[in-house]
Amino acid sequence: MINEHYLNMLSNKNIIRVLSEYATARGQEIGYENVFDFSLGNPSVPAPDSFKEAVIDLVENTDPVKLHGYSPTIGLPQVREKVAESLNRRFGMEYKPIHIFPTSGAAGALAHAIRAVSKPGDEILVFAPYFPEYTPYINETGAVLKVVPADMESFQINFDEAEKYLNENVAAVLINSPNNPSGAVYSEETLKKLAELLKRKSAEYGHTIFLISDEPYREIAFDGHQVPYAAKFYDHTLTCYSFSKSLSIPGERIGYVAVNPACEHADDIVPMCGQISRGIGHNCPSSLIMLAMMKTVDDTADLSVYETNMNLLYDTFVDLGFTVNRPGGTFYIMPKALEEDAAAFCQKASKYDLIFVPTDGFGAPGYFRVAYCIDTEKVKRSLPRIREFVEKEYPNR
Amino acid sequence: MINEHYLNMLSNKNIIRVLSEYATARGQEIGYENVFDFSLGNPSVPAPDSFKEAVIDLVENTDPVKLHGYSPTIGLPQVREKVAESLNRRFGMEYKPIHIFPTSGAAGALAHAIRAVSKPGDEILVFAPYFPEYTPYINETGAVLKVVPADMESFQINFDEAEKYLNENVAAVLINSPNNPSGAVYSEETLKKLAELLKRKSAEYGHTIFLISDEPYREIAFDGHQVPYAAKFYDHTLTCYSFSKSLSIPGERIGYVAVNPACEHADDIVPMCGQISRGIGHNCPSSLIMLAMMKTVDDTADLSVYETNMNLLYDTFVDLGFTVNRPGGTFYIMPKALEEDAAAFCQKASKYDLIFVPTDGFGAPGYFRVAYCIDTEKVKRSLPRIREFVEKEYPNR
Repeated sequence: MINEHYLNMLSNKNIIRVLSEYATARGQEIGYENVFDFSLGNPSVPAPDSFKEAVIDLVENTDPVKLHGYSPTIGLPQVREKVAESLNRRFGMEYKPIHIFPTSGAAGALAHAIRAVSKPGDEILVFAPYFPEYTPYINETGAVLKVVPADMESFQINFDEAEKYLNENVAAVLINSPNNPSGAVYSEETLKKLAELLKRKSAEYGHTIFLISDEPYREIAFDGHQVPYAAKFYDHTLTCYSFSKSLSIPGERIGYVAVNPACEHADDIVPMCGQISRGIGHNCPSSLIMLAMMKTVDDTADLSVYETNMNLLYDTFVDLGFTVNRPGGTFYIMPKALEEDAAAFCQKASKYDLIFVPTDGFGAPGYFRVAYCIDTEKVKRSLPRIREFVEKEYPNR
Repeated sequence: MINEHYLNMLSNKNIIRVLSEYATARGQEIGYENVFDFSLGNPSVPAPDSFKEAVIDLVENTDPVKLHGYSPTIGLPQVREKVAESLNRRFGMEYKPIHIFPTSGAAGALAHAIRAVSKPGDEILVFAPYFPEYTPYINETGAVLKVVPADMESFQINFDEAEKYLNENVAAVLINSPNNPSGAVYSEETLKKLAELLKRKSAEYGHTIFLISDEPYREIAFDGHQVPYAAKFYDHTLTCYSFSKSLSIPGERIGYVAVNPACEHADDIVPMCGQISRGIGHNCPSSLIMLAMMKTVDDTADLSVYETNMNLLYDTFVDLGFTVNRPGGTFYIMPKALEEDAAAFCQKASKYDLIFVPTDGFGAPGYFRVAYCIDTEKVKRSLPRIREFVEKEYPNR
């Protein structure tokens, strides 16, 4: 008997994919170099040479039976140790290998973290604006996603609204800083206030509210800043990470869950993730990729292009009179559209071969996302086109 | 709120793992070469050189942004095409790329296939003896595993019992040939009878009963035989495959679901798998591994060692008077224990540093599994030990 739930999901078109497909089709007409495709968050810089060297070294110099053999479900011990060491050194944490669970990217990390700290029927709060894939990530576990409306001034957390949404059914709160789509980085002050709120509410409800911190953009921070490490501020934090952006290897599907050693059930959660894997078919990432990551855990691709692109676009949007926050990281910027209907705005932009994504689906209606993980040369060529689009379509702004 | 369900799973000890851990601990006492560890189904032959060469060629000669970039959720088109071509050529099928879904091994394949063709509350039948991990694979989706008792003569399907277990709540039947733990290969006759039964029952209940065929051991067949390809016999078949054994790369987590083009909803099932992925955090296997598999799809490791080992063990067990079927494939053999309580039998064997697994948990009480994916030299050294064990412990057999 075919599963009608998944069959019905096929008719729900993802707006980002629709726009990306439009951009590809348009590119076939006029040359893709002439389509300013800001739709997809797909890293555009090469992986560091060290990653390639690590792969070659592993296949050249390791017994293939060992190299390609089964890993334990909770990951190779040496990989878990190396990740713990790196996090401890960089963020002053005290992770042990038992707190590190290698996963197939951040999606795999979230699939385990959410299941570990919630059960079907529980609520999980996210703060708008938020990554729309959180909806299936959460709701398909049986837990229920609840969206706390955004602080549209700063894209930090709207604490008045958060207070209203917290209730005794909330098992966990999921944050994403640096943020897709806004590019905002949660400040230390925001993280402290969030920790205080969660502590107070956990005490009030008599159970721990967990914090799941989704940090795939952690290494893309601008102005020389370091992104505050959420787990430093709240004991009961599960950090979900992906090397997709830092090493520029999104197709390799490698990341981890790191469980704060001060967390409730800290030593159980990774073994629990091993049990969760049995039900969702995960069973550890590729051993070759896991070991190559281990050898390059502190490296990054050259991420400076994203800051260059951000500054070009930010300055242009400001100059054109857009309401826009300067991103603290990621490769996204989220200006306010020049009319109330952001979809109509993006539709008009597409006539100029500018592919922007309206952020209604991200819980931020009236705004649009610009993903600038493309060549700087193309960003530069897009600037006069953005100017032309705005001046022609919105002459009286 | 910690998830009690997964927390409680931690206390359920897996018998295979317990025995394997015992073997490792014992190995530290007396040298692992002196422990005849037949507990784990972990391939022991090296991957073919072609796999290593494919990996090196890919990282040396492909633009890293393309090589390591995001794959579509349903997999790289060229990989899907190559897998379809290979299956069509080898088994006379007519798969198109839309019928092929690359996965993280057979576990990933089953996680998607089961969800695609059943919903929570539906029943899924497996035939004893069966791989115990099917229990979490099935039950964690919300569907319910039902075990049809074995045909203990031949380890083919017990059709009288199958008839009794089929009812209108059965969404799918899951088979595993060549079989873990028995080593049996389902004959064409068995597959034809099964197809007839499923057709008749589907008509009777007014809905299609799907067949999920889990075939990780398909390339380990003995006596020069080819394993009959289940999908040839029944339209509504989802074939789940893993390259773990054929290429001897179990740690790399690569396999696929292949949907019979004649299957109900044939063109929907792979896109549905893409939707399922969003909820379970799968999002396609590693792109490097997927592409290396593509380049080696028709290769295998040197699998002949398993047949050599099987013959040594089979002849010894027969000579010692065991009731035992000669395996048609896999790297398992499953003789009947020399006393009713197979756990007690295996306990006694462990005093001789022979590590066997009682198959009570595989739905075959009174038998034991011998996993002979170890060096032939070690198998040879184990034979006098098996003889000694049997003669001392069961002198009056």
